Amino acid sequence: MSRRAQTAGFMAMKGGGYYSRATVGARHAIDGAAPLLMDALARMDPPDDGRVLTVADMGCADGGTSLDAMAALLREMRRRAPSRPIHMVYTDLPRNDFGQLFRNVQHLADEIPGLYILASATSFHRPILPPGTLHFGFSATASHYLSETPREISDHVHMVGASGAERAAYVGQARRDWEGMLLARARELAPGGRLALLNFGIDEEGRYLGSTGGVDMFDTFDALWAGLRDAGAISAAEYAATNFPQGYRTVAEFTAPFRDPDGPVRRAGLRLEHVDTATVRCPYAAAFAEHGDAARFAREYIPTLRSWSEATFAGGLSPDRPEAERRAILDRFYDAYEDAVREAPDGHAMDYVYCRLVAAREPA
Amino acid sequence: MSRRAQTAGFMAMKGGGYYSRATVGARHAIDGAAPLLMDALARMDPPDDGRVLTVADMGCADGGTSLDAMAALLREMRRRAPSRPIHMVYTDLPRNDFGQLFRNVQHLADEIPGLYILASATSFHRPILPPGTLHFGFSATASHYLSETPREISDHVHMVGASGAERAAYVGQARRDWEGMLLARARELAPGGRLALLNFGIDEEGRYLGSTGGVDMFDTFDALWAGLRDAGAISAAEYAATNFPQGYRTVAEFTAPFRDPDGPVRRAGLRLEHVDTATVRCPYAAAFAEHGDAARFAREYIPTLRSWSEATFAGGLSPDRPEAERRAILDRFYDAYEDAVREAPDGHAMDYVYCRLVAAREPA
Repeated sequence: MSRRAQTAGFMAMKGGGYYSRATVGARHAIDGAAPLLMDALARMDPPDDGRVLTVADMGCADGGTSLDAMAALLREMRRRAPSRPIHMVYTDLPRNDFGQLFRNVQHLADEIPGLYILASATSFHRPILPPGTLHFGFSATASHYLSETPREISDHVHMVGASGAERAAYVGQARRDWEGMLLARARELAPGGRLALLNFGIDEEGRYLGSTGGVDMFDTFDALWAGLRDAGAISAAEYAATNFPQGYRTVAEFTAPFRDPDGPVRRAGLRLEHVDTATVRCPYAAAFAEHGDAARFAREYIPTLRSWSEATFAGGLSPDRPEAERRAILDRFYDAYEDAVREAPDGHAMDYVYCRLVAAREPA
Repeated sequence: MSRRAQTAGFMAMKGGGYYSRATVGARHAIDGAAPLLMDALARMDPPDDGRVLTVADMGCADGGTSLDAMAALLREMRRRAPSRPIHMVYTDLPRNDFGQLFRNVQHLADEIPGLYILASATSFHRPILPPGTLHFGFSATASHYLSETPREISDHVHMVGASGAERAAYVGQARRDWEGMLLARARELAPGGRLALLNFGIDEEGRYLGSTGGVDMFDTFDALWAGLRDAGAISAAEYAATNFPQGYRTVAEFTAPFRDPDGPVRRAGLRLEHVDTATVRCPYAAAFAEHGDAARFAREYIPTLRSWSEATFAGGLSPDRPEAERRAILDRFYDAYEDAVREAPDGHAMDYVYCRLVAAREPA
């Protein structure tokens, strides 16, 4: 769902090779991981034995940002094992726009011989495929979505700004979800299969999405939302009920299940082959550095923030409010963010910070 | 796409067990075929060998009308082969509402152990799955949609009313599509696999959907559309360009590929196990026989006709017409149909006429 806002339809409208800035960061992060995928496939070295190979993109949204990377992976798989049919399984939650997904990716089946495209609406917190039938699992910009929101955060809208027991609740939920997701994948991976995961997370220097040394994006969200509370536009209960259902994990948290030789993930046969972090510069901030027009920066930047954050802020508002009133509050909120960027643009940026992991499934 | 109009969401809204009349005919036809499915599964007698079994519902629309039949088939498969994971693959064209499909069927994965639900947007005129990997293929109320419209029909809107070279063009396209569909299935069926197909068609007495001895539905469509042409509301070119992209086949046409021992379908290993025809009474006409209110019959009956036919009539109109003008023409058209039913209700009925076939895949 995190890549929901990625507008491959818009890309198609603009013609091949064009991508809107709203998608270019996540796409660059995935394209930048292509060598990791190719190296993992080389180590996997699938025998050309005619049996079905299965690839999955879990949390695929509309398939737009991973399209080039998946096409490259599938072509290399085709080259290495010409006799093997390939199942390409795109997965996301039932509310995903699967029609748009199919319209974006279906052409791959015409371009790559023996490729069969499928979709699943099973959450990656649960088994998606039968045991031992997945050969290459991929997931990008998705695992930070928690299976449930553990509790309200009293003084912030995101767990990165929470503290004490509130922060611990999110860290704990993120730990359980991560281990559960790895165990679900370990169960469905074939021996020798690989898992390549690009996750929003907290890097070795404490940086995360929108927090890389300039103006902190989630702190800005929080300050403006608290401002609406202080101005009486929203209630204290609505402010408290507004929490991103996300958990950003540190590199240590991502790798912990692989470091415990007696833990369930290692016992299930998963072995960590690679971990690193990567940052992709905010395309709007980069463009602003070129054009220097603060009003344009603010006007172009806010819609992409709104595209993935609005559901969270809307979800915090009381269901008793009429629809028009909710819309007015949200408009006022994002207008305030646009004003803030226009008036003091320096340092605003939604830089992407990823923790990238590759794991292998050994025989149990 | 043919079952697009089936409103499982509406069903869900009304609570378990409720189905609107718009879906009940197609659902009854499928439920009535459950013994055919169970018998085919019994003959197939899948060994309990732990390998993945794959079932497909091809042309599934939102999965609503086949839900009970598929659930029964999957439960019986689960009982017969407890160790085998089951892939249930729902297929339709990319413009299908796959989100609604998943919302309708996803619960089956919670109810039936070892069931994995997938979707494909590959046309059933092409290979959907890798060779030899399909164990039970099902398709209902779908195969009458042709892969292309062969030509315009000068004096009718549907091939059932066409004659001469025009009718022959549709019959030929329907024959090629049927053979192509069977060959695509033969390729993907595992040896011993089964195919159960419920097709709109023309029975031994010449009956077909909406033409079972009373007022002919497609003739009524045509007369009213020609009336708009004669009244100057649509052009002669628009009338001629309005053609259902469908081919209704006779029983002889459905069975022909199986009767030719040297033909490609038999050579591909497909053998016909069962063929019959079945008719399901129009639920609106049946209700009218009870309540006797002509205005109510007309009011309730026309929306279901409109739900699956409007795209064809809209498609015949010139793209130069403004949207509001197109809407007005279509409203006038369906209002005229409602008037006709209200003024002379007797004999109006969309009775369903099916040709039902079961085939087996033998070793090539």
